[in-house]
This record gives sequence, structure tokens and C-alpha cells, in this order.
Amino acid sequence: MIVAVMGGGQLGRMLGLAGIPMGMRFRFLEPAADCPAAAVGEVVVGAYDDRKALKALVRGADVVTYEFENVPVAAARWIESLAVESGPSADPFHVDLCPGSRSLLVAQDRVEEKAFFERCGLPVQSYAAVEDEQSLARAIEVVGVPSVIKTRRLGYDGKGQCVVRDADQLLPAWTKLGRGPCILESFVPFAREVSMVAVRARDGDMRWWPLVENEHVGGILAVSRVPATDAAALERSAQRHVQSVADALEHVGVLAIEFFVVEEAGSVRLIANEMAPRVHNSGHWTIEGAVTSQFANHLRAVAGLPLGSTALRGAAAMVNLVGDVPDLADLLRHDGVTVHLYGKERRAGRKLGHVTVVGADRVVVARTTASVRELAWGAAAV
Amino acid sequence: MIVAVMGGGQLGRMLGLAGIPMGMRFRFLEPAADCPAAAVGEVVVGAYDDRKALKALVRGADVVTYEFENVPVAAARWIESLAVESGPSADPFHVDLCPGSRSLLVAQDRVEEKAFFERCGLPVQSYAAVEDEQSLARAIEVVGVPSVIKTRRLGYDGKGQCVVRDADQLLPAWTKLGRGPCILESFVPFAREVSMVAVRARDGDMRWWPLVENEHVGGILAVSRVPATDAAALERSAQRHVQSVADALEHVGVLAIEFFVVEEAGSVRLIANEMAPRVHNSGHWTIEGAVTSQFANHLRAVAGLPLGSTALRGAAAMVNLVGDVPDLADLLRHDGVTVHLYGKERRAGRKLGHVTVVGADRVVVARTTASVRELAWGAAAV
Repeated sequence: MIVAVMGGGQLGRMLGLAGIPMGMRFRFLEPAADCPAAAVGEVVVGAYDDRKALKALVRGADVVTYEFENVPVAAARWIESLAVESGPSADPFHVDLCPGSRSLLVAQDRVEEKAFFERCGLPVQSYAAVEDEQSLARAIEVVGVPSVIKTRRLGYDGKGQCVVRDADQLLPAWTKLGRGPCILESFVPFAREVSMVAVRARDGDMRWWPLVENEHVGGILAVSRVPATDAAALERSAQRHVQSVADALEHVGVLAIEFFVVEEAGSVRLIANEMAPRVHNSGHWTIEGAVTSQFANHLRAVAGLPLGSTALRGAAAMVNLVGDVPDLADLLRHDGVTVHLYGKERRAGRKLGHVTVVGADRVVVARTTASVRELAWGAAAV
Repeated sequence: MIVAVMGGGQLGRMLGLAGIPMGMRFRFLEPAADCPAAAVGEVVVGAYDDRKALKALVRGADVVTYEFENVPVAAARWIESLAVESGPSADPFHVDLCPGSRSLLVAQDRVEEKAFFERCGLPVQSYAAVEDEQSLARAIEVVGVPSVIKTRRLGYDGKGQCVVRDADQLLPAWTKLGRGPCILESFVPFAREVSMVAVRARDGDMRWWPLVENEHVGGILAVSRVPATDAAALERSAQRHVQSVADALEHVGVLAIEFFVVEEAGSVRLIANEMAPRVHNSGHWTIEGAVTSQFANHLRAVAGLPLGSTALRGAAAMVNLVGDVPDLADLLRHDGVTVHLYGKERRAGRKLGHVTVVGADRVVVARTTASVRELAWGAAAV
């Protein structure tokens, strides 16, 4: 089976590492030949919207998926149209795109995403679209302060956003972001951030990994921990939320939703923040920490195979390696540690790898995670 | 770090899958370009004793290892001599061979191997070398019947051997094997077969995975199960035996020794059968079933990194897929199952892949293993 992947970064690399044992062969579309995924498959070098490159990517493939949520929707739709035009035959261009372009469309636009969450019954903070000075003025009335203004598209790792503490900071903030289409969101006084990573099969079968607790540093995911605090109280509703979204999108593959956890009057509740229609950084711990990893289950889903158990094996944590990589020997001397490097050159702010910590004993895992976090993040504040 | 590997079969493929996450790049020497390891690295196409190919393999590599125990000792020694001649410099041919050629030499010759085991204090059955009719006659006097005559070199998976039940079957059996150098071994009335897979680091640090119980069908490993029956009674002596051999060889990397378990008068004891100076089929379950796999620890050892924990995570089993591969969906519908295919064409008697079963509950793992064994081996007798 040939799996074609739009994007050739670390997520593609880890898909390849999970799929090669299932006998899959990989082909990635990526502008750079020496991308992280090059270690595990063929690379079609080209832009994501280059039709010649797209044809080379999908020719003879059994399925197409993406590992990068900013793949142009037009390119995804063109692949879908090729399949429709060529019909369900032995045509080399009849190939399913999983997940479909609709999942991309919703995930790429923060206003579409929030509106879609609401239609699916997910709780969201108050928000308003901003496109001009008039809508900017309306937005601040609806949303108030403190709030966060973000570009509607292409934001990640805390980029493309500004906190607004006072109404007169709004116009300068919007100007700083380029005066383009934005969203103003009320600031959520959250206690913690969590994510629910789940996978949906072609037949609608759905599995959820345990709720993950995420610690960000400067807008970048630093540490994920499983099980999450208050998982018992939150897990079932998080599962229902992801299922609503996945079913509405007829999503096939992994889908992750990040939530804020708000503590109020002794109880906890979730507010949906954003979704990723792909394998997700907060699910990397599943390679060693779950019976079946998010990468293996994503591939099982898109290949039409039965999904594997998402059960947690003991306790687990994941520490991102950003900008630099500690000495491997210092990391590996801790029991239960696995290092994943992505083959990328060091650069400030760049995700270069991650470390997984697994074990039967939560206390030991927590202690090892603290040591690894110290090596990777030093004294960086929470 | 560039790891050069002599051999490009499934063991090389699994080394690559374990090493890519550690940021290693792989180069394999193999006569066939479309070998299993081609999915995870560059392939230098050539014979194992082709010096030009060997130079292309080791040039600029950080370490050389082997995944195939029938690599010619002369080729291994030549690599070692290159390093010695070029000196500990930045010379592109100064590269360590780990494990060394001595481990190969001992493992390749059944008489050397038995004698080496004896020198290291391991219990072995009675045996004698056979080279001509005179030594053949002496051997049967020493060893008696029932016994097994085997070629001294290049036997595997039950090939190159004959059972001798009566003294006058010996000459025809030796003739059938080609009248070359052989070994006659007394037949051991064993209750079970087990193996101890261990890893030794450059500094002599040694780790052992739990004792594995192996079920062979027609001379081929069919199923490995962990923990083994009577592990508590046998594990410590198996560990000591492997350590004696590994220390004597100054072995760096994974070393496996297969033992017969003999039950006598209510107690159990081990008899050393054979060794493999490399990652071993009976250690494949460690990918999912142990904290650190044999592949990851072999690479950590040869790269001079600290070894990882070899602890068992729950219970585990491995079922080999030989000659044919069951429908993937039938295998994957069982929880705790991971499929590993080697990318080889189907052929009778060929190892095409394996299935790992892991879980916290031994009874569930045993039941799933029985189902997988039935799919893979049908009604094949033990």
C-alpha cells in the first residue's frame, strides 16, 4: 500500500515510522528535499499547490492524507475532484483524501472553527470576527476585555496574536497583526489546558486517547502529561465534543481538540479552543505510552483497517525539544525515556524533537519528567 | 550519526526504525537493492566480502554493526584493520566494528561455539567434531544416540541438520549433509526452549530482557512468550551465562543465547544450545513489550549511549509470519496486536513478518496469542 502525505515534517516522519511496519510505503509532498520525512519515504519536492507535484504525489497511491493543517484547501479539493472525475476504477488518480478538505477548511479559519464548534454544541468563549474598523468596534463591545486578537488564518505556537487588556489597545494590536481578517476572543481565565486526541475510522468507529494536560511556555507546547488532572470529571464530555465535531465533518483519521479547563465554584468545565485535523503534538506520548499510537491509528483509519486500543500503559509524559537538543546521554540515562529527533537543524523556537517518559508509577514518571523538562527548558517559567 | 550495517534484512529494517528517532542515519550493505532495510536508509549494493562495497559502506560512518551473523569474518576483520591502520583520527575509515569479529567467529562455527561455551562455564550437551570417517566413528562412541548431526557452519531454522536415532543412520546422514565439517550433538530431551537476550555496553554495563520461552514448528521459531515458564528458577543462571560469554568476547551490542530447559527430578536446568551475536528473533516482542527494545538498546550500546531499561511491560508474545501473511484486518481487530511486515515477497518458509501481542493481563495476552497463532500457523503442530 502506498500512502501519499501532504507535508514532510516530523509528523510525516512519525507516520512513516508507524506505517513501515504495516508494510506501507510513503510518498511525501514537501518544498524541501531534506525534510524530516525523507528518512522514511520518497519526497516529491514541490509547493503544496503545484498541480504537477500534486499529480506526482497521488499517482498510484492508495490513499492521500496530510500532516500539515495549512495545506491549501484548493489543493485538497483538486485531489478530491481528480478522484471523482476518474471514478472508482483502477485509474491511478482515483485516490481518497482522508481526512477530507472540509476538516482543513474548518481548522484553517478561527472564525469558521468557533462557529463550527458552536453548531456542534461545544462550549466556546465569546468571540467576534474583525475585518475592518467598524467590525473591530463592534467586536470589543461584544467580547470586552481582557481579550485576545488573533489572525483568522495561519497562526501557530502563539504567533499571530496579541492580548488586549484595555479597549484602546485593540486598534494598535490589530494594526500590529497587519489589519487583515482577525478574530477577537474573550480571555478565558483558565486553570489548565488539556487536549483530547481521538481517531475516527471510515465506518465511524471512534476511539479516544486519555485526556492530556498541556503546559505551554511562551505559546509553545512544552510538556504534555497523562493522565490529566480531573480526567475523571472531564474526559467523557471531551470525548463527546470530539465525536460531535468528527461526525459532523465525517472526519477519517486523527482529530485533536484543545480545551481550556475553567475552575468555578468547586467544579470544572471545558471551553473548546482549537482543533487540529491531523496527528497532534500533544499525542506524541502515545508512541510509547499507549497500546496503539496516534500515528498507527491514523494510518489504520485512512487505510480502512480496524482501530487499535488507545488505552494508556501506566503513566506518560512528553517534553518538547525546542531550539536546541540536550546531550543524548543526559536524557537517556533516565529509565523510561525515549528520544525522538526530527533531523532538523537547530534554530531558535523550532521544534527539533521530543522526549517521552513512560512508566508504571506516576510518581517516578513525574520525577523523570521534571528532570527532562529541566534539561530541555531550564528554568523557563510555566 | 551515521550507522553502517552489514546486512539489509528485517533486522536492519527494525534497527533503522529504532535509530531514526535517535537522529541516526543508516547505510546498509546488501546484495539486493530492494531489501527490507531499504525503507529506512541508503543501500550499498554488493557482496559482503566486496572490498569496494565495504569501503563505500564504512566511509564516514560513526560505527559499523551487523545484523546477519554469516557476514564473512574476513570482511569484518578487514574493517577492523582499516580502523587500526588509519588510527584514531578524523580519517573516514576509522570506524569501530561493534560487536567485533570475534563474536562472529565463535557464532559461525558450532564446534567453536560449544567449546567457547564450555570455557565460559556454560553447561552444554556432549558433542564431537566430525571431519572424516575416522572422526565420525569416534564421535558416535563419545556422543551416542539419539543425537543430531549438523553442519558446523551456515545452518539456520532447522536447515543443515539430521536426527540420528541409530548408529548406522550416522554415515547416511553425514553423506546427506555433504560429508563436510560437522558436529554430532547428543539429543537433549528438553521440556522447553528458552532464550536470554541481553545487551552489553562499551563500558561493560549489561542488561537482560526477561527470559523468553520459544515454540518452534519444523525448526522455525513460531511463537515467543514472556514471561517464560519457571523464569524465577532459571533467569539468574541464564543471565550469568550470557554475561560470561559477552564479557569473554568483549561483546558490544545485543547477544542472544538459546537454551534447552531440562526437567529432572522435579528441578529444572539449562543447557546452552547456540548464540546469536546480534538482535534476535526471540527479542522482537521487546519493541512493544519492553521499556526499551533490543533494537534501541543495540544502537545505544554501539553508539556509546547509556542503556535503557529492559523491563517487561505487562505480558508479551510474538508470533512469526512465515511463508504467508494473514489478512491484516483479521490480525488488527484484536486489542494489543501490532503487525510488523518486512516488505519481502511471499515464499514458502520465509520469515515475512511478525505480530506482537502485549497487555497487562497474562490471560488476555495468552488468549490473543492463541488467536493470532491460529491465523498465522493454522493447526501446525508444536
